[in-house]
Amino acid sequence: MSAGAVADIGVGMLGYGFMGRAHAHAYRTLSYMTWPPPLLPRLVALAGRDAAAVRDAAQRFGFDEPVGDWRALVADARVQLFDNCGPNGVHAEPTIAAARAGKHVICEKPLGRDAGEAYATWQAVEATGVKHMCAFNYRFVPAVRLARELLEAGELGELRHFRGSYLQDWNAAAEAPKVWRLDRALAGSGALGDLGAHVIDLARYLVGEIEAVSGCTRTFVRERDGGAVDVDDAVAAAVEFANGAAGTIEASRMALGRKNALSFEINGSRGSLAFELERLNELRVHRAGEPGFRTVLVTDPEHPFMRQWWPPGHVLGWEHTFVHELGHLLTAIRDDGDVAPYGATLADGYRAAEVCDAIVRSAEHGVRDRVIARTLRDAA
Amino acid sequence: MSAGAVADIGVGMLGYGFMGRAHAHAYRTLSYMTWPPPLLPRLVALAGRDAAAVRDAAQRFGFDEPVGDWRALVADARVQLFDNCGPNGVHAEPTIAAARAGKHVICEKPLGRDAGEAYATWQAVEATGVKHMCAFNYRFVPAVRLARELLEAGELGELRHFRGSYLQDWNAAAEAPKVWRLDRALAGSGALGDLGAHVIDLARYLVGEIEAVSGCTRTFVRERDGGAVDVDDAVAAAVEFANGAAGTIEASRMALGRKNALSFEINGSRGSLAFELERLNELRVHRAGEPGFRTVLVTDPEHPFMRQWWPPGHVLGWEHTFVHELGHLLTAIRDDGDVAPYGATLADGYRAAEVCDAIVRSAEHGVRDRVIARTLRDAA
Amino acid sequence: MSAGAVADIGVGMLGYGFMGRAHAHAYRTLSYMTWPPPLLPRLVALAGRDAAAVRDAAQRFGFDEPVGDWRALVADARVQLFDNCGPNGVHAEPTIAAARAGKHVICEKPLGRDAGEAYATWQAVEATGVKHMCAFNYRFVPAVRLARELLEAGELGELRHFRGSYLQDWNAAAEAPKVWRLDRALAGSGALGDLGAHVIDLARYLVGEIEAVSGCTRTFVRERDGGAVDVDDAVAAAVEFANGAAGTIEASRMALGRKNALSFEINGSRGSLAFELERLNELRVHRAGEPGFRTVLVTDPEHPFMRQWWPPGHVLGWEHTFVHELGHLLTAIRDDGDVAPYGATLADGYRAAEVCDAIVRSAEHGVRDRVIARTLRDAA
Amino acid sequence: MSAGAVADIGVGMLGYGFMGRAHAHAYRTLSYMTWPPPLLPRLVALAGRDAAAVRDAAQRFGFDEPVGDWRALVADARVQLFDNCGPNGVHAEPTIAAARAGKHVICEKPLGRDAGEAYATWQAVEATGVKHMCAFNYRFVPAVRLARELLEAGELGELRHFRGSYLQDWNAAAEAPKVWRLDRALAGSGALGDLGAHVIDLARYLVGEIEAVSGCTRTFVRERDGGAVDVDDAVAAAVEFANGAAGTIEASRMALGRKNALSFEINGSRGSLAFELERLNELRVHRAGEPGFRTVLVTDPEHPFMRQWWPPGHVLGWEHTFVHELGHLLTAIRDDGDVAPYGATLADGYRAAEVCDAIVRSAEHGVRDRVIARTLRDAA
Repeated sequence: MSAGAVADIGVGMLGYGFMGRAHAHAYRTLSYMTWPPPLLPRLVALAGRDAAAVRDAAQRFGFDEPVGDWRALVADARVQLFDNCGPNGVHAEPTIAAARAGKHVICEKPLGRDAGEAYATWQAVEATGVKHMCAFNYRFVPAVRLARELLEAGELGELRHFRGSYLQDWNAAAEAPKVWRLDRALAGSGALGDLGAHVIDLARYLVGEIEAVSGCTRTFVRERDGGAVDVDDAVAAAVEFANGAAGTIEASRMALGRKNALSFEINGSRGSLAFELERLNELRVHRAGEPGFRTVLVTDPEHPFMRQWWPPGHVLGWEHTFVHELGHLLTAIRDDGDVAPYGATLADGYRAAEVCDAIVRSAEHGVRDRVIARTLRDAA
Repeated sequence: MSAGAVADIGVGMLGYGFMGRAHAHAYRTLSYMTWPPPLLPRLVALAGRDAAAVRDAAQRFGFDEPVGDWRALVADARVQLFDNCGPNGVHAEPTIAAARAGKHVICEKPLGRDAGEAYATWQAVEATGVKHMCAFNYRFVPAVRLARELLEAGELGELRHFRGSYLQDWNAAAEAPKVWRLDRALAGSGALGDLGAHVIDLARYLVGEIEAVSGCTRTFVRERDGGAVDVDDAVAAAVEFANGAAGTIEASRMALGRKNALSFEINGSRGSLAFELERLNELRVHRAGEPGFRTVLVTDPEHPFMRQWWPPGHVLGWEHTFVHELGHLLTAIRDDGDVAPYGATLADGYRAAEVCDAIVRSAEHGVRDRVIARTLRDAA
Repeated sequence: MSAGAVADIGVGMLGYGFMGRAHAHAYRTLSYMTWPPPLLPRLVALAGRDAAAVRDAAQRFGFDEPVGDWRALVADARVQLFDNCGPNGVHAEPTIAAARAGKHVICEKPLGRDAGEAYATWQAVEATGVKHMCAFNYRFVPAVRLARELLEAGELGELRHFRGSYLQDWNAAAEAPKVWRLDRALAGSGALGDLGAHVIDLARYLVGEIEAVSGCTRTFVRERDGGAVDVDDAVAAAVEFANGAAGTIEASRMALGRKNALSFEINGSRGSLAFELERLNELRVHRAGEPGFRTVLVTDPEHPFMRQWWPPGHVLGWEHTFVHELGHLLTAIRDDGDVAPYGATLADGYRAAEVCDAIVRSAEHGVRDRVIARTLRDAA
Repeated sequence: MSAGAVADIGVGMLGYGFMGRAHAHAYRTLSYMTWPPPLLPRLVALAGRDAAAVRDAAQRFGFDEPVGDWRALVADARVQLFDNCGPNGVHAEPTIAAARAGKHVICEKPLGRDAGEAYATWQAVEATGVKHMCAFNYRFVPAVRLARELLEAGELGELRHFRGSYLQDWNAAAEAPKVWRLDRALAGSGALGDLGAHVIDLARYLVGEIEAVSGCTRTFVRERDGGAVDVDDAVAAAVEFANGAAGTIEASRMALGRKNALSFEINGSRGSLAFELERLNELRVHRAGEPGFRTVLVTDPEHPFMRQWWPPGHVLGWEHTFVHELGHLLTAIRDDGDVAPYGATLADGYRAAEVCDAIVRSAEHGVRDRVIARTLRDAA
């Protein structure tokens, strides 16, 4: 089929670091793997403060123009989609401004530095009527989407357990310097918002709303080169779901030997599922009455997102989650459709933030936090 | 070397079910794999209420004599070691009586139906001066002992995380009947005391004392054929250790597809360890500065307990934990040595029970339970 | 059920090394795990040349009496089963003598140092009418027996591929001394007869007769402390089966990092199976039309041999293969039943030896060896 | 760094199927992940016979122009690099013509339908002096390159074993139709040239030249919808290397449950390596004297090709091999450097073809084929 009739969409991006690079690459890959693409991304402008760096990044990523201030993107009529890949501290203001200027928005997670900021961002953007997405990209791993489909179809029966953790180790050495991710003013929280938020989003996406949490946090290295650390290095919590399931959530940047180890297992009355991000093409599935777990290589054409990729067994990489995520967003924009429930909206960004805050409160006060009372305010 | 000079020891056993069979087998295997054995077990008498069944079991297991009442064992001068493999509800009284009759005692876990009963048992037995052991057999998996040795040698540095779970699925079906393990009067608790106690003991053995817990429990099927279930099906908790480490503990008999899935991971400032009971011959080890986890097959002659087993790579089974455990106990008896710290004493049985109770309390009240204040009373 | 009426059987054993210890242990474990046992083994006498060592071993293993010469076992009327655990060079003569004296025989593998010796042994023993078994114990791994049952039921359809290898590394270092296993006069061959024979037996047991082989052998270290090595360190072959399947067989004692790594995979027109001995409780099963491989933990009561062992998930060790193997042999003796096809007879011992020799011939001459023309002589 | 000064290079591509899509995508991804790129690919024209399809593909992949005949690419002065992604039967003529027109060439594997065609292609192209590459992309998996680097550094010592297989199952069903890959006139051979050639190339790349092979082939389904199959479905061979190592090579399109299962293990006198393509981010490494295999996640910045990708643990997909491969080729073109030894040249394409043919000959005649006598003709 020809893409001759495919409309295009102008993209303005804030930030050119790790996430900026991942999103930019995905815009370009989209039309290879989704043909015809829902909309053809036109990379209009890339914003960042360091003029030389942003110029170089714009060339590398294929943006037409580097700009010094995100306000230029907001003011640019060619930009129809504002993609916020900046640090946590510049999530709220630019995202709200872009939405108010009529641009659709996608914002990296965590949506805000705390639940209050996230809530305000969501509410302000929601009021404008644009499409909005919080970039919880792991919803777009084919194996995770397959898990969701199995769960929606009732294949696991009544859900009983969720155990999820996201473990990295880049911050394990006491000699590692204090970076922005270790500064509360810039990042809001530590492993909790950076890694734990992903686990929380998957827990909500796959199991349902979290009703209560009881947790603890740890900062193992409090003084680093560059100053005192005022965010958590790690967090652990017992979680209870509105549907009765119970389990654990954990995140750490100090689990030596674990590089990008997001994993979860779900047990229901009719079966179980298990997933590990470092082997993201695999989903392990058990069904009651059958022996053992099946290791499904999620690369068949009938698997989610895989129709236009490669033949079976030709595995995808981490970055391809963004191709699927942005394809989903562009489809919603083109069709005036819903980002939810398969994509995370800013409402999801807020709700994950509320659970993060609840873990912090329970850790501080030693009292189970019935987060659901807050989370569900303003729910549709 | 000849065992001609090896003294023997008379064993009286209460209970001939799953655990009775495992212990009996281990007494007989001991002298094959530990030569000369510390003491030669003489299987004097086996006690149980069902006369026909106990007679059959005595023949099968090689006991000289079946008896109907455990009091006969206590009264029997030939019995020097009393092995309590009965259900939880008959742990306390017979164990205390045997110790007061001057017999060394080993008692299956959980030591009591609650911490109070466990405490009383420990105190009463301790006062007699006999050797005592609580049968936390997973301390005697070679890979677990190797983990302990690595930790004692400081190879993991400062400990930061423990995540442990023990998952089975034999009780997942709502149609499964109510057995004694689902009756609080007989069992004390459900998955918590049966499975969770093992995780708690390993956490204490490997990481150290648990300072506080915040958890929740679940009973997913409350009415079964045979009556109402008044124990937990599953439990999940965030745990904090006295040494600053934090993590999670979980137990369930309803994790479909998991048959005997005790697993743990420990992360420290210099490395990490991971273990799974269904592959109990393997220990995964990571050291800071080296890439990845190493899968160590713990079957070399220099590995714990393995000097007299088979050549490298010839794997052991689950039951062999009991051979090592009983060998340890008989050595302590022969040498008037200590059961602790490599074996669990009744003090360890009590302390695990106290943590179990604390999880129940925190689950009920929604408040973090600082269990350590209780646990360490009477500590040496 | 009572074993009061179970008859016993006197066992005389030659050899008290690795295999002697494994067999002796299995005789004692048998009645724990097979109740009532087919016959109650009475360990009459153990033969070996070193008087002190055999005396010690007899005590350790529970034999009534040590003897210096295997002829004493043959002459002993109390011995009804002769168990030959001696080195390869003393397999033929004592086994034949025992059978001629009317004793049932079990002989360790490889049956002879070459196919000629194996053939002569089989023929001589077969002529006496006693029961005979060649101790290919891996047929008695529950997962392997399950594989056989799936294959017999046609679950894999037409068989297409077998790839099997048995890798160890104890001989990898050039500094390792020359032991009897490296001496052709004593052992016949090297990795081929020691390890390759197991793979060949499993190939025959699971897939069917081998029609042709094309292989090569290697002796990587020709001079060792203790003399020149005149057996193979490793062997590799392409194999063709009478039923049309094709594949590879490999054995090495120099595959560093592999301790006891016997593994195979079978692919048919309807499914596939995979097995690894170092994780011997697991069988991976794929069926056409279903996604992925299922990892079956072969520990359920309905799995082969598992009815009387432990609850699901409580894994067995390597040694338990011998319990199942000897239980099978004693059942055949008691019932005057067949050792074949689930147990290996001396005919199987011979046929494996013939394939071993064929690989050597093809390696020497560079010509595919149509071994089946020889193997099937005298087949029933 | 700016790419302002980076020269560009015009690419003309023949074929827009599976491989065409993979190469096209890689040209576009290159500048994201290698910055500045060695040369900036300009996608000039795409050739194919089906006018509508090639027009659509050109738009999708970003080529400036679709053309109907590859000769247009050869005649196009803007094309400096000719990329042959056509079926095997159109590898030789267009590749030779392009080289004679002064274009650098990359050709998919297998280079020819048999060794003769491959030889002629190599010789003709070599004579023109252009850069040439045979697209054995698995050399460019980071884990495979790491393996090569470890081997080059002597970390495995003297090499003793290679066992490699490439298993797929798309052709297992007898109902699957006859496609061009099953037609000798178009494809030359079946699993052998398609999959086995990859294993052979890796064996040569990692271990060294193959001296002799003894193998067999199978065609399990000879009649299909679409006609008789005259190529192999599967192949198995014992292989001997010039350096003394020995092992096995196997390929099948009928190994049910195996989707893209290329795997190999190499054992040397000082260590071992193991790799599986379906988990391509992992390399398992054993070193003599250390316990077990280490599972290295090959995603650290210091790992091959990974400097500009993502943070550790963010895994790559199958397609990224092409990014590395084309980056290597463009660097050689820019610097007038060598494609060998890290990239495969047409000489490597020929040599792999010669080994393929030798396996066929040994299968037909039942005689070990000393392929090295042919392979090394014309070696530098």
